[in-house]
Amino acid sequence: MNNYCGTSRIAGCQFTLYPMSDQFIEIILSALEEVDTSKVWKDTDDVTTCIRGKMVHIFDVTKAIFLHAAKTGEHVAMSGTFSIGCPGDSDADVYMDETDTPLNEEKSREIMQQAGCKFSLYPLGREDYMDVIYEQIDLSRHRNVEVSSTHYATRLDGDVHHIFGALHEAFDSVQEKVSHVTMTFSISANSPTNKE
Amino acid sequence: MNNYCGTSRIAGCQFTLYPMSDQFIEIILSALEEVDTSKVWKDTDDVTTCIRGKMVHIFDVTKAIFLHAAKTGEHVAMSGTFSIGCPGDSDADVYMDETDTPLNEEKSREIMQQAGCKFSLYPLGREDYMDVIYEQIDLSRHRNVEVSSTHYATRLDGDVHHIFGALHEAFDSVQEKVSHVTMTFSISANSPTNKE
Repeated sequence: MNNYCGTSRIAGCQFTLYPMSDQFIEIILSALEEVDTSKVWKDTDDVTTCIRGKMVHIFDVTKAIFLHAAKTGEHVAMSGTFSIGCPGDSDADVYMDETDTPLNEEKSREIMQQAGCKFSLYPLGREDYMDVIYEQIDLSRHRNVEVSSTHYATRLDGDVHHIFGALHEAFDSVQEKVSHVTMTFSISANSPTNKE
Repeated sequence: MNNYCGTSRIAGCQFTLYPMSDQFIEIILSALEEVDTSKVWKDTDDVTTCIRGKMVHIFDVTKAIFLHAAKTGEHVAMSGTFSIGCPGDSDADVYMDETDTPLNEEKSREIMQQAGCKFSLYPLGREDYMDVIYEQIDLSRHRNVEVSSTHYATRLDGDVHHIFGALHEAFDSVQEKVSHVTMTFSISANSPTNKE
């Protein structure tokens, strides 16, 4: 273990929600209103939103925000980077005292939404990082999503709940072996077929 | 050097352009029409666009696409990951024979556009990756953009040409020292002030 960050295993995600609609402000605000973010540290500016806390809540909140935006039927996308074990990452440590119960799962479960997603795992500080990545890509073939490989990324297609489930599991299993891991993702829903 | 990819130093970028507008299809298509992508390998699906070739053309094309979309005045964003030295990355090697002259610089130069951008560098396969990152973050302080640090990323504010110039330089200088490097970025223009 090459752990720079002491005892805290605080996770985080820096992401942006992109509604491809003139109503983008309303869609973003209403998604945020419907999602309970009280178990995570949160900071939003004009480029990204950053949330930090226990891994379970990071995935719960990002999935919920995406789902509540996608249920509008508009073409929405979300892109971001999950991170854990980042050196110096300690000022939101108080959120690590929250319980493990996700606050948004019940409401999220009511939303069925298909999506396409590309993700890439970056285990840092390890010379054998490619072995860790390949091992994980193999694992994801057993999930309830369609998995395909593409340049620089793995593509997942299916229900948003299954996609975020696969992302969460992939990230979790790699961070058990590697202290500092980041995972980029781009997810898209309600895309018109002929979009280029 | 931990170079898995033989002689080729092919670079690539997997990115998505996000116009926050009902006219998103028209904005994407017209931006693509105005940009000459003949010096890069290119593949687009409903989630991302991937381009590959010489580093100079990867940055020339991504900057040009963003600028031509932003000049519409709509709130547009772009998010993606630059990559170089990715193992197994060889089927677009023919594009490495192109000359170094960027095809879009002349037309891009006519567009003045302010933007905000966050980026993160990930040198892979190196235990001293944090030193490489910190060294680079120091370097960027000397450029013609406002540099600030934020969770998981470095923020750049200024003219889009200067932002992409800083991204290009940061990526280039790290890849001279580290074989496999990825760099994530999110750039946003024409954002309404009170957007959350």
